[in-house]
Amino acid sequence: MKAVRSVLEYLKGIGVQHVFGIPAGSVNAFFNELYDIPEITPIVTKHEGAAGYMAASYAKYTQQLSVCIGSSGPGGTNLVTGAANAMREHLPVLFLTGAVPVNTMGLNASQELDADPVFKSVTKYSVTVTDAKELLNEIVKATEIALSGVPGPVHVAMPIDVQHGHVENTVIPDLTRRKDIVPDLDKIKKVAKEIINRKTGYIFIGQGVRNSVEQVIELAEMLEWPMIVTPVAKGLIRDDHPLLAGVFGFAGSDYASTLINEGDVQTLLVIGSSLGETATNNYNENLTKNRFTVQMDFDQSVFNRKYEINLPVLGEIHLSLMYLIEELKSLGLSRKNAKHIEETKNIVISEEYNTKNVLLKLQQYLPSSTRYSIDIGEYMAYVIHHMKVLETDTFDINVHFGAMGSGIGSAISSKLAEPYRPAVAIIGDGSFFMHGMEILTAKEYNLPVLFVVMNNARLGMVYHGHALQYKRTHASFEQEPINISAMATAMNIPSFRVNEMEDLNQEVINNLTNLNGPAILEVALVDNNVPPMGDRVKFLSSFGK
Amino acid sequence: MKAVRSVLEYLKGIGVQHVFGIPAGSVNAFFNELYDIPEITPIVTKHEGAAGYMAASYAKYTQQLSVCIGSSGPGGTNLVTGAANAMREHLPVLFLTGAVPVNTMGLNASQELDADPVFKSVTKYSVTVTDAKELLNEIVKATEIALSGVPGPVHVAMPIDVQHGHVENTVIPDLTRRKDIVPDLDKIKKVAKEIINRKTGYIFIGQGVRNSVEQVIELAEMLEWPMIVTPVAKGLIRDDHPLLAGVFGFAGSDYASTLINEGDVQTLLVIGSSLGETATNNYNENLTKNRFTVQMDFDQSVFNRKYEINLPVLGEIHLSLMYLIEELKSLGLSRKNAKHIEETKNIVISEEYNTKNVLLKLQQYLPSSTRYSIDIGEYMAYVIHHMKVLETDTFDINVHFGAMGSGIGSAISSKLAEPYRPAVAIIGDGSFFMHGMEILTAKEYNLPVLFVVMNNARLGMVYHGHALQYKRTHASFEQEPINISAMATAMNIPSFRVNEMEDLNQEVINNLTNLNGPAILEVALVDNNVPPMGDRVKFLSSFGK
Repeated sequence: MKAVRSVLEYLKGIGVQHVFGIPAGSVNAFFNELYDIPEITPIVTKHEGAAGYMAASYAKYTQQLSVCIGSSGPGGTNLVTGAANAMREHLPVLFLTGAVPVNTMGLNASQELDADPVFKSVTKYSVTVTDAKELLNEIVKATEIALSGVPGPVHVAMPIDVQHGHVENTVIPDLTRRKDIVPDLDKIKKVAKEIINRKTGYIFIGQGVRNSVEQVIELAEMLEWPMIVTPVAKGLIRDDHPLLAGVFGFAGSDYASTLINEGDVQTLLVIGSSLGETATNNYNENLTKNRFTVQMDFDQSVFNRKYEINLPVLGEIHLSLMYLIEELKSLGLSRKNAKHIEETKNIVISEEYNTKNVLLKLQQYLPSSTRYSIDIGEYMAYVIHHMKVLETDTFDINVHFGAMGSGIGSAISSKLAEPYRPAVAIIGDGSFFMHGMEILTAKEYNLPVLFVVMNNARLGMVYHGHALQYKRTHASFEQEPINISAMATAMNIPSFRVNEMEDLNQEVINNLTNLNGPAILEVALVDNNVPPMGDRVKFLSSFGK
Repeated sequence: MKAVRSVLEYLKGIGVQHVFGIPAGSVNAFFNELYDIPEITPIVTKHEGAAGYMAASYAKYTQQLSVCIGSSGPGGTNLVTGAANAMREHLPVLFLTGAVPVNTMGLNASQELDADPVFKSVTKYSVTVTDAKELLNEIVKATEIALSGVPGPVHVAMPIDVQHGHVENTVIPDLTRRKDIVPDLDKIKKVAKEIINRKTGYIFIGQGVRNSVEQVIELAEMLEWPMIVTPVAKGLIRDDHPLLAGVFGFAGSDYASTLINEGDVQTLLVIGSSLGETATNNYNENLTKNRFTVQMDFDQSVFNRKYEINLPVLGEIHLSLMYLIEELKSLGLSRKNAKHIEETKNIVISEEYNTKNVLLKLQQYLPSSTRYSIDIGEYMAYVIHHMKVLETDTFDINVHFGAMGSGIGSAISSKLAEPYRPAVAIIGDGSFFMHGMEILTAKEYNLPVLFVVMNNARLGMVYHGHALQYKRTHASFEQEPINISAMATAMNIPSFRVNEMEDLNQEVINNLTNLNGPAILEVALVDNNVPPMGDRVKFLSSFGK
């Protein structure tokens, strides 16, 4: 068979169901073989950049390797942002690129590019395969690297002739399962001892707990410690959990901030957070000050990076939590009915037409299981600060790598990965004009995603950030308003434009969600309130003084 | 002053008038200073990728350094395709990126990315500046590298705190002019001798002659040798020149092909071509077979790369041509009234509604000085094969790096660089859905560019290429048709949709061109003829056998 066929057989065998990307001459051998493999559907996007975001989120939601493909040259470089994003988010994505035939390398063939060094620093492994006999081996090796240790993206460049090369007697290997990083039991015992000795503490929760939410809650209820989440971990713990203190960090809650800055607990138990800028409110020293700090993570590099960690525990988070819970049980602790640490406030939505109220109202009309994929813009701060977590795993907020358009890709992948779960993307006009044509991709694959476009005809985050820091803004941050709903109509996509608070009601939302494809809810609104993002600005401003 | 201000003062001083890119927190110090420098206008695009294409073409048209900026992280990586394109096209573009503050590097700040290694292999120079005192020096150094030798892109990452850092007593240097690469006079004399001894020959012209067209024509008329151009050099020599034999290579003319494959001339004089795949019809051996081959270029690396070159001449092309012409004159040659080497054919446009006829008819209605920026798609082959060169420098065809969307950026830059010259982009629906929102950028800056969108609701190049090679195609190459003219209307952009040949007339074109902003001419047409791109497919197919 052709070498590229063996790659596809391997991918099929390990359960790959979608390949994101755009076909081109340099990868048409791949696409031609794909034609004969109904188990794998190519998701052809409008821009490879979006394919990269989709692949990353798809890996997150399916907890499997995902695959992304682009041509030699521009198709490949268009995937670099996706690779950098997946690297930052620790998501196992196999990036495939075409390449010019081995014997024409360096001879200026059409779309020639040596993509390997470009991908090297934003992947765990990058290689150009120059021998068809090695192609499958390299794909298998890359896949295993992507899934092992700290997961992440890998890149394999496949020259045209290598794809076509014939390989004989090829044995298609099974997936080598990830080898668990097993935490040191003595360390876990130590953690348990310190916790019991010190009694009071907070659990500081990053997105690393995504697949261990139940265990974290059990632990919190055993200890009766408040849970504080990072912005990217918003959505993992339901808001009605009595011990949830809300988000700390970028656009976080006042209550969580008070606990961190003024609370006198003795222990900080960090789980699955790298303690980066957005999670720590710009490396706020109070986080660990006078607190015995335990950090549990599968990534060795996050320990003692900015904060001194008294007791770092390396290991799979679900294993560390399991062992710790068992150890605490053996020491006599048990799960208790938690009391509310904070007074429950009823949500009051006034009729003022602003971002906060629109988001809260929107949430009232959508099913509680809805997963919101949040793009990068002014509204992101409002989402983190104000929106409610009604069920677990209902938000995807990538304030981390922060790529505009990533929320569009995430929402599409959410629908592909979990077809029965409502998917809503909250994006801005900036994101829409950057990657919004992927809504047509959603249409072509009959994916009912609701795209809520917060249209303020300006780069709102830039506008407000700049205004706060410099007390002025630049005309180029704003644009002539475009009626995005009218654009949707032209694209045969159902849409509705909200111009004032009264426009938004249950019927409008129903009309846009009971469909066989995407829809657009445009919210035309220039919100001149300062978004709840003061700390980010403080961070940026601190360097101007 | 702030370090970033000194950078802007330097850029202003060397004549930079536009900066292409998107603002963000990590570059807001740059944008804030820009606010006070009216000489430099930021062109804020919808996607940094398009900013990269604009900057490259702008450098080409203005023959000066151009500047492109993106945020730390995703904004930076979105510029990588633009850098790779500029590298391939030898265009001096300064890519600037923001970066997290020096003391937070490695600590997972928002949008953190070490962009330096990512840019390294697709630029001539890439650096992260960690000391404000060094920022201006590094910018000056990078600029000089960009403009020297074989020009190309460079990259400087500017951490937030470095931008803000105060520098004292800063002397803003002038531009160090490019040091000419002076050709060896003895070599030129040798070339002249060989030419005169051998008498017959062809001049094989690449895009390196862009700024030496008059000299090339003078040389051809002195020698009475046919001129053959590469696809990317199409548009440099007027079609009515008696010695022009047309395009050889991708989608080239039959006549040029016959000359190369069957002509018995003794000399091949290659000027400004790297003799890459598209220029040589996949490294056709007949090109230099039994011909004494001279190659004149400023890029040492193009000599003896695939073809044996008997006499390589390193030097600025305009200098080599000047010296050669002088030498030939001193040997008694003079410019003659050239006779037509090929019978002049009248253009006959039938009423059949197909790509060829649409393009030819379009050209009849547009001024002869119109510059056509051609994007990447099926129509590109028709443009190269059929469209007429009525004036010099009227086509921009980047079949080389071949990035979809690059034609959109080129057309916008053409208008910025030469406001009085009509600018037309010929793009496909694939390019439109990838980077077409930049038409709004053209609108925001009042740039009257006509975007001709060849809408066949499929990736036509992929479709035809695949069909030719595999005798079948994949459903994912086609999409549900979208009325792009209707989308234009929704965006308040004048437009017209062509559905049949009769729809296209002078009035339609006049209505779309006498404007203060962009317009869209949509050509709804599924052309099932095989595009004139057989050699590319032969090249791709050759590896499947």
